[in-house]
Amino acid sequence: MAVERRTSRDIRSESRLDVMHALLSAEEATRNDLARATGLSPATVATVVGDLLSEGIVTESRLSAGRVGRPTTSLRINADRGRVVGIDVAETYVRAIVFDAALREVAGVETPRDEHESSPEYVVEGIGRTFEAALDRAGVGAEDVLGVGVALPGIVQRASGVVVVVPHWSWHSVELDSLRDRIGVPLVLDNPLKAIATAELWFGTGRESDSMVTVNLGTGVGAGIVLEGRILRGATNAAGEWGHSLLAIDGRRCRCGRQGCVEAYVGAPGIQQTLREVAPEHPLCDLEMQQEFIQALAAASAADTPDPAVEETLAITARYLGSALADLVAVVNPERVTLTGWTTWALGDRLLPLTRARLDEEAPGESAAGLRLEISTVRSNSVATGVAMIALERFLGDVGLVTTRVPIAL
Amino acid sequence: MAVERRTSRDIRSESRLDVMHALLSAEEATRNDLARATGLSPATVATVVGDLLSEGIVTESRLSAGRVGRPTTSLRINADRGRVVGIDVAETYVRAIVFDAALREVAGVETPRDEHESSPEYVVEGIGRTFEAALDRAGVGAEDVLGVGVALPGIVQRASGVVVVVPHWSWHSVELDSLRDRIGVPLVLDNPLKAIATAELWFGTGRESDSMVTVNLGTGVGAGIVLEGRILRGATNAAGEWGHSLLAIDGRRCRCGRQGCVEAYVGAPGIQQTLREVAPEHPLCDLEMQQEFIQALAAASAADTPDPAVEETLAITARYLGSALADLVAVVNPERVTLTGWTTWALGDRLLPLTRARLDEEAPGESAAGLRLEISTVRSNSVATGVAMIALERFLGDVGLVTTRVPIAL
Repeated sequence: MAVERRTSRDIRSESRLDVMHALLSAEEATRNDLARATGLSPATVATVVGDLLSEGIVTESRLSAGRVGRPTTSLRINADRGRVVGIDVAETYVRAIVFDAALREVAGVETPRDEHESSPEYVVEGIGRTFEAALDRAGVGAEDVLGVGVALPGIVQRASGVVVVVPHWSWHSVELDSLRDRIGVPLVLDNPLKAIATAELWFGTGRESDSMVTVNLGTGVGAGIVLEGRILRGATNAAGEWGHSLLAIDGRRCRCGRQGCVEAYVGAPGIQQTLREVAPEHPLCDLEMQQEFIQALAAASAADTPDPAVEETLAITARYLGSALADLVAVVNPERVTLTGWTTWALGDRLLPLTRARLDEEAPGESAAGLRLEISTVRSNSVATGVAMIALERFLGDVGLVTTRVPIAL
Repeated sequence: MAVERRTSRDIRSESRLDVMHALLSAEEATRNDLARATGLSPATVATVVGDLLSEGIVTESRLSAGRVGRPTTSLRINADRGRVVGIDVAETYVRAIVFDAALREVAGVETPRDEHESSPEYVVEGIGRTFEAALDRAGVGAEDVLGVGVALPGIVQRASGVVVVVPHWSWHSVELDSLRDRIGVPLVLDNPLKAIATAELWFGTGRESDSMVTVNLGTGVGAGIVLEGRILRGATNAAGEWGHSLLAIDGRRCRCGRQGCVEAYVGAPGIQQTLREVAPEHPLCDLEMQQEFIQALAAASAADTPDPAVEETLAITARYLGSALADLVAVVNPERVTLTGWTTWALGDRLLPLTRARLDEEAPGESAAGLRLEISTVRSNSVATGVAMIALERFLGDVGLVTTRVPIAL
């Protein structure tokens, strides 16, 4: 049969990830602490810790002994096991972040991209240059790097080779073998939605819920879906492309080429178009840089004198967003929806109450009644962070500790 | 942590279901056949078969011995272990089907319902009466019944008690303790979408794909989502309510009270509305019974002389359906989408090519390129069949053989 069943190896793998996650949260913990935090049995924790110690992922130090019994030892992630690097290739920049093995940021570098230039050579060169600059700043060599993750703003899938589809770059099937040669260390490629969902799994609330969806709001919009502690990838790694599901058949033209996509309404350019429809002469309509526009909208909305066109734009955007989230609730029915991305950081607090009200009206039956709709607690660049975690998972897979299926390892 | 992880018990449970499924397909098989069919090791198959034999789920008979070696024995599901009953409560009828434990139909009874009457007392009485008539026809007593499943056309969830939400019945939170008392044997309630997906798991292609979606087209429309051999239920058992996701914001009024739902366009009354928009004076606009309308549409479309209004209605419907399926592909990205339900039986062959073309245009990237879109091979009443399977799974759970989480057992 074609279906991939979970095996007892997968269960050991999940226990190891649970223990690592608990150790990352606590920074330092005893085996008993870990058993309490994970709900695993003390025997399982002991086995898992042994596995992690033997691969050097975890280190042990002796605590002061109590008056009776054996001395307790405490555990922490071995930060010096090596470095992982996450690279977020966005429309206007490439950002590389170097992490130690305890997932603490060591150094980051951002280089600008010409958003009108999208040849594979240009993209590969930009990634390579940013990666090397980040290693320089971190003071480490490529030989210290356990893995590199690169998030590309499209659908990354494996057909005969690795294929990346980026519609607004006119990449319909670009192979990136040259990227592997340029980077020269174990490399994974993934989609930003899978990356942010992974960041939520490692640093946010993803491992606490049976089902959660992380919704990214920026130039593009999309969803990372986590079910039972694992990312839903789908048949071609395209699950979560909610930004290109319909809000309105025959509606606004989307930059993906189709019409009526959610992104055309709640992506930053879509919000700007809403303002143009509300008040074509409004000065904010002329701001060309998207992040600048969103920041200006947030500032206008926080000003002492209300700007009716801005308020109406936010109300309409919340209505669109609430309806689009209700569709996600209708299909997936998650326990949580977490909002992230730079539009969220700027406008999330303003949008949340109206979005919530619309979502409650539009979700079928009582399906949204218990839903937690909240702003992500994972800040920084969650795409770079998340794709670095995918690279770390790949490393843990390569040494036999976890069975996470990283779809695109170069 | 709140997340329910799979355990090694779940893995044994899945192996048992795989073996039962293989036995149902083959009717009769040796342990070696089962190992080949399931991909499980011979040792695992031997253990699983032992478990199933000891609970009387499976029986063994000796085959003619070969000239050398031990005689082979063959296995089959023990049809006489007991009966399970599936009851489909639809808008216009209640249908009860009695199955033996090998899931062969023993007898079925359908009683009409007054679609304008929806008091809980009337519904419970209709279910009870149909159940008793079906037992009578099958010649079995309630003591032979291992379990009964009832599918109600709404969202079935468990809050403080069991709650059934049926918007078009104005059931907003109806408790059905009286149903348990009326039926008097172990009872599960579920939603028709979960039932059809379960039928696809047991009798169709559901156990062969990592991800599949069964789409039901009738008066209402909806989706049953199967991921890794299990039904996606969601936080409140409402996952799959794709029929009430948006096709068009501010679009057609849906009978659920909201606007623009997929169901308002591709549910049978939605198709009739499309014909009214295309040709308000068309004689088929006056047909009041939905199934009669859909049959007449199919007949007109198969006639020698093409009816342009009918052809246009089908083309528009396929466009709506293709767009709505593309949304499902965008979010879940399944390997297969299987169409079922009485609109599918009548119009599926006509709708499929145009729907497929639209789906390929509208799905993000290449996400639909490898998708299998097909008409379900599970015929008969797949709601009644599926909900009977859920009742059987509950029985197998009660005797400790499977860990399927049946959400609403009364």
